[in-house]
Amino acid sequence: MAKVGLIMGSISDWPTMQVAAKQLTAMGITYERHVISAHRMPQTLQTYGEAAVQNGLQVIIAGAGGAAHLPGMLAANTVLPVIGVPVKTRALNGVDSLLSIVQMPGGVPVATMAIGEAGAKNAALMAAQIIGLQDATVQRAVVDFREHQRQEAEQSERQF
Amino acid sequence: MAKVGLIMGSISDWPTMQVAAKQLTAMGITYERHVISAHRMPQTLQTYGEAAVQNGLQVIIAGAGGAAHLPGMLAANTVLPVIGVPVKTRALNGVDSLLSIVQMPGGVPVATMAIGEAGAKNAALMAAQIIGLQDATVQRAVVDFREHQRQEAEQSERQF
Amino acid sequence: MAKVGLIMGSISDWPTMQVAAKQLTAMGITYERHVISAHRMPQTLQTYGEAAVQNGLQVIIAGAGGAAHLPGMLAANTVLPVIGVPVKTRALNGVDSLLSIVQMPGGVPVATMAIGEAGAKNAALMAAQIIGLQDATVQRAVVDFREHQRQEAEQSERQF
Amino acid sequence: MAKVGLIMGSISDWPTMQVAAKQLTAMGITYERHVISAHRMPQTLQTYGEAAVQNGLQVIIAGAGGAAHLPGMLAANTVLPVIGVPVKTRALNGVDSLLSIVQMPGGVPVATMAIGEAGAKNAALMAAQIIGLQDATVQRAVVDFREHQRQEAEQSERQF
Amino acid sequence: MAKVGLIMGSISDWPTMQVAAKQLTAMGITYERHVISAHRMPQTLQTYGEAAVQNGLQVIIAGAGGAAHLPGMLAANTVLPVIGVPVKTRALNGVDSLLSIVQMPGGVPVATMAIGEAGAKNAALMAAQIIGLQDATVQRAVVDFREHQRQEAEQSERQF
Amino acid sequence: MAKVGLIMGSISDWPTMQVAAKQLTAMGITYERHVISAHRMPQTLQTYGEAAVQNGLQVIIAGAGGAAHLPGMLAANTVLPVIGVPVKTRALNGVDSLLSIVQMPGGVPVATMAIGEAGAKNAALMAAQIIGLQDATVQRAVVDFREHQRQEAEQSERQF
Amino acid sequence: MAKVGLIMGSISDWPTMQVAAKQLTAMGITYERHVISAHRMPQTLQTYGEAAVQNGLQVIIAGAGGAAHLPGMLAANTVLPVIGVPVKTRALNGVDSLLSIVQMPGGVPVATMAIGEAGAKNAALMAAQIIGLQDATVQRAVVDFREHQRQEAEQSERQF
Amino acid sequence: MAKVGLIMGSISDWPTMQVAAKQLTAMGITYERHVISAHRMPQTLQTYGEAAVQNGLQVIIAGAGGAAHLPGMLAANTVLPVIGVPVKTRALNGVDSLLSIVQMPGGVPVATMAIGEAGAKNAALMAAQIIGLQDATVQRAVVDFREHQRQEAEQSERQF
Repeated sequence: MAKVGLIMGSISDWPTMQVAAKQLTAMGITYERHVISAHRMPQTLQTYGEAAVQNGLQVIIAGAGGAAHLPGMLAANTVLPVIGVPVKTRALNGVDSLLSIVQMPGGVPVATMAIGEAGAKNAALMAAQIIGLQDATVQRAVVDFREHQRQEAEQSERQF
Repeated sequence: MAKVGLIMGSISDWPTMQVAAKQLTAMGITYERHVISAHRMPQTLQTYGEAAVQNGLQVIIAGAGGAAHLPGMLAANTVLPVIGVPVKTRALNGVDSLLSIVQMPGGVPVATMAIGEAGAKNAALMAAQIIGLQDATVQRAVVDFREHQRQEAEQSERQF
Repeated sequence: MAKVGLIMGSISDWPTMQVAAKQLTAMGITYERHVISAHRMPQTLQTYGEAAVQNGLQVIIAGAGGAAHLPGMLAANTVLPVIGVPVKTRALNGVDSLLSIVQMPGGVPVATMAIGEAGAKNAALMAAQIIGLQDATVQRAVVDFREHQRQEAEQSERQF
Repeated sequence: MAKVGLIMGSISDWPTMQVAAKQLTAMGITYERHVISAHRMPQTLQTYGEAAVQNGLQVIIAGAGGAAHLPGMLAANTVLPVIGVPVKTRALNGVDSLLSIVQMPGGVPVATMAIGEAGAKNAALMAAQIIGLQDATVQRAVVDFREHQRQEAEQSERQF
Repeated sequence: MAKVGLIMGSISDWPTMQVAAKQLTAMGITYERHVISAHRMPQTLQTYGEAAVQNGLQVIIAGAGGAAHLPGMLAANTVLPVIGVPVKTRALNGVDSLLSIVQMPGGVPVATMAIGEAGAKNAALMAAQIIGLQDATVQRAVVDFREHQRQEAEQSERQF
Repeated sequence: MAKVGLIMGSISDWPTMQVAAKQLTAMGITYERHVISAHRMPQTLQTYGEAAVQNGLQVIIAGAGGAAHLPGMLAANTVLPVIGVPVKTRALNGVDSLLSIVQMPGGVPVATMAIGEAGAKNAALMAAQIIGLQDATVQRAVVDFREHQRQEAEQSERQF
Repeated sequence: MAKVGLIMGSISDWPTMQVAAKQLTAMGITYERHVISAHRMPQTLQTYGEAAVQNGLQVIIAGAGGAAHLPGMLAANTVLPVIGVPVKTRALNGVDSLLSIVQMPGGVPVATMAIGEAGAKNAALMAAQIIGLQDATVQRAVVDFREHQRQEAEQSERQF
Repeated sequence: MAKVGLIMGSISDWPTMQVAAKQLTAMGITYERHVISAHRMPQTLQTYGEAAVQNGLQVIIAGAGGAAHLPGMLAANTVLPVIGVPVKTRALNGVDSLLSIVQMPGGVPVATMAIGEAGAKNAALMAAQIIGLQDATVQRAVVDFREHQRQEAEQSERQF
């Protein structure tokens, strides 16, 4: 059963969001992935959000670009933590995506990540850190990932 | 029967949106007004959008601030023209509202106005220009309004 | 007889604006297209705006970049709804175009769309939604377009 | 024992961050609060981050303004989820705070909220949504809060 | 006969533009002042621009805010030098005014000044520097002004 | 004898500034061109500015990028009209150049043009419009240029 | 003999720059203060820069707003380290000042501080850190200041 | 023994930071270079900062991108002057890096340079200007560099 719902507003967001998918897989976290456009499939969005808790999900990761309403509208329909990834856009480089996701009104939070692939990777890590609070194996995976990236950084320092 | 649905995300948007209300009244256009929060009342939003055509509305004006999802989500649920008014916010002066409203993806348009009260006034005028296409009285009111503001401008020029 | 006037400030805006043209054609909406530079052909602009109603147009779509004065000046010369498309510019990516179009003073609205091709497509759809208020065939086309894009989105979800 | 560490970079951030404190209290979530300046108390910051897991904390909320390094440096020193609140600054209105918090490199996420008080409130709610995954009482409190704010919104709609 | 046409889009621009008026007077340059709204009085604008040369004007100073089309449209209708003053706006502090004035397409220049009162003062000085090329009295006034402000600066240095 | 001094801060600005040079030549206006770096050749800059009037120049065009101090410092050293061209930069696309040139304090104006090549072309045209006030041949050239570009625009409209 | 030259472009910058003055005094560092406008007193600026080394100065702190050319032009005329303080402006909040100071071309650096009073204070501290490299008393003062502010931060934590 | 510590947050910053390295070498200034990630190696960062004085360093140059915490956190752990170089980022072109580095709170300064390679070159020159205060050979090298670049600029002027 999937722990994480990995949702994107358009199939064109996949090159960014697959970075999150790979990171989840690398940490042994199950996920389901879906294309749910907030503007083209509003009912599906609402149904998905409302059913998320009883479907056994623990975290939702939502990536979108431009007037990015997907993360906020999912957050409006569930009490699961929703992590938002602003996808880089053509004209405004994702500044529009970032502000549309992060500037949520008081009452309905979205945990916003950096614009683009770094944000997608971090969305997976944040999901792991959240799930890890009650799943020692996942928390171990986060600790190992941190240790691994520290070693990689030190390695690049040594070979510099 | 109301021709225009005047919707805002929060009662705190009313000082801005009442400028639209006054302009509609001044032009003899009936409207209904509602507070529908996209994030706190997502089902209501969807229901309202879906029923708008059969409720006899012709135009929806939606004002919201910050991560302003209201206009776009209404637009996703109706084929009526939706006019969006970015409300000025405390931290970012409405730049966040503007980008969250105007940068809609291809497929679901929102007719975006200027930030704040000028935008609210223009939303009412745009509604009138749209309704005026098939209602000669309303189009006459627009022509009269234009003539009136031209005379006011010329008056302030003469008294300068 | 054309229902929509599709105007651009320069022939170099055509790659963007043809997205609007294609969408209009796909929905069976007649249009006429013109290059009218606000700065190089100001008299033509004024004449075009003033004659638009009696020429039988219902909506004007105007695309321009940089200090984009075309949509606002057309709006100043007609009571038809004017839809503005900010064309992406080389230095400022269309932020200048967007602000020059959307920040109209109270009294003369321009229905502003997103920067670039998404905005051009949405300009055509907004024109259709406006015309559809009094033309059942066009409103049907909008409903069909919406249904079609919902199915496409669901299709890309199913094949994901 | 505190579930949430509520940290701010300066006592001057308290007017913003107390909104988070109040919301945590309202939801029955224990917290400890500290002033830890990333730049004036770097060792304290590191010690606090490293000890957070064994001190029984589950979530850290960190608010800071300007070149806001506190949330990111706490995140670098713990595997607990860190929620960042950009505090509004005098010159740049919190745009500097927002970018300094949200644009974390791949590998160390910070769950970023909106600028200012709305962000502080949402930080508490996000903490509750995270803790609620394993604490039914807290999740109940989130559901109740959502229901309550929905009713408030509907109330303001009815009295409009 | 007036040498400078001092035009503003609205009487509300006068508090800014009177700084230009005072500076012109102080330098002995005659001017006429008018409120000509680009959007509410487009014909007047065009007529004014077309007649400016034969009316004996040498320079036009135009101040406007928001989607500030006045300077550019005057420039489109005359070969006199047009100096643009971006007036500070409520939501965007004049960034919209600045970009709408300065980002003119190749072919029709506007000599853009700083946002607000400093820009208005400098518009008058730039007009004087232009007129001074063929009017020794005016050029003398510019030299004197420069000398005077140098002495004032040195005075404030001495008394510091 | 040159009428216009065409100055740039670096030889790397020439691809932009040659657009001004070509336009000046096309209108029969003599110019001299120089590389004078405000930061690497401050004495040369000062000397050039101070001698500009007696060297018979009428207008100075100065192009620079980044912290673009060249136009403002030339303006500080002469009473000739100085036209500034913000050159597009690598990181900030010329926003830094634009603000460094246009936001001059009250007392020393720079006539600022658009960022990049459009701005360079317009700098030449603005110089021509200024010189044309006292040189009928040059003013004739401006009128002809305007007529020519109007015809070109109409031609592209006819062939559209 | 003064170690630091504390220069500002206008007496109106003193409320900001006195924060630097107080911090220098508190650390026992001698300074001279001057109003030298880059645009109104360009010769004075150049003379001051050229004579700075032989006048025994070690560091120059320069504060300015808007198109802030003072720090960069001082840096162009001396090999002493120049520290720039962007003063907050009315329209653009100091973003123009910041970019005009920090975006110096390769070859002539300015050590840029934060916008406004925090930047002024830090300019004094940076001057002390530079002078402290060869003056043990000053370095001791920096160490003491750091220790003092750490204790203050801890105090505000204890009393929280 | 190295005079300058040249630190970067990631090996991917080296293409930018090597411009600083080359300039240091060209001026005969010894340096050590390290990759120290603020977020992946926080302990190493702290140790490095604390030991910098006794290791004989005089200046630290730190380059980082995005939420660039490296320069500020090094500055928090040493009283040596720290020079920050904002590295250009993919989404935001280094605006995030710039604000994260320059907007330091009062008490802990970072001497911020321009975004990208120009900033890296200037970081080396600023280090030389600081070290040159007590090392006549290095100050001589700065004077020679300035003279050399002046001659190069004049050369490009002569060959223009």
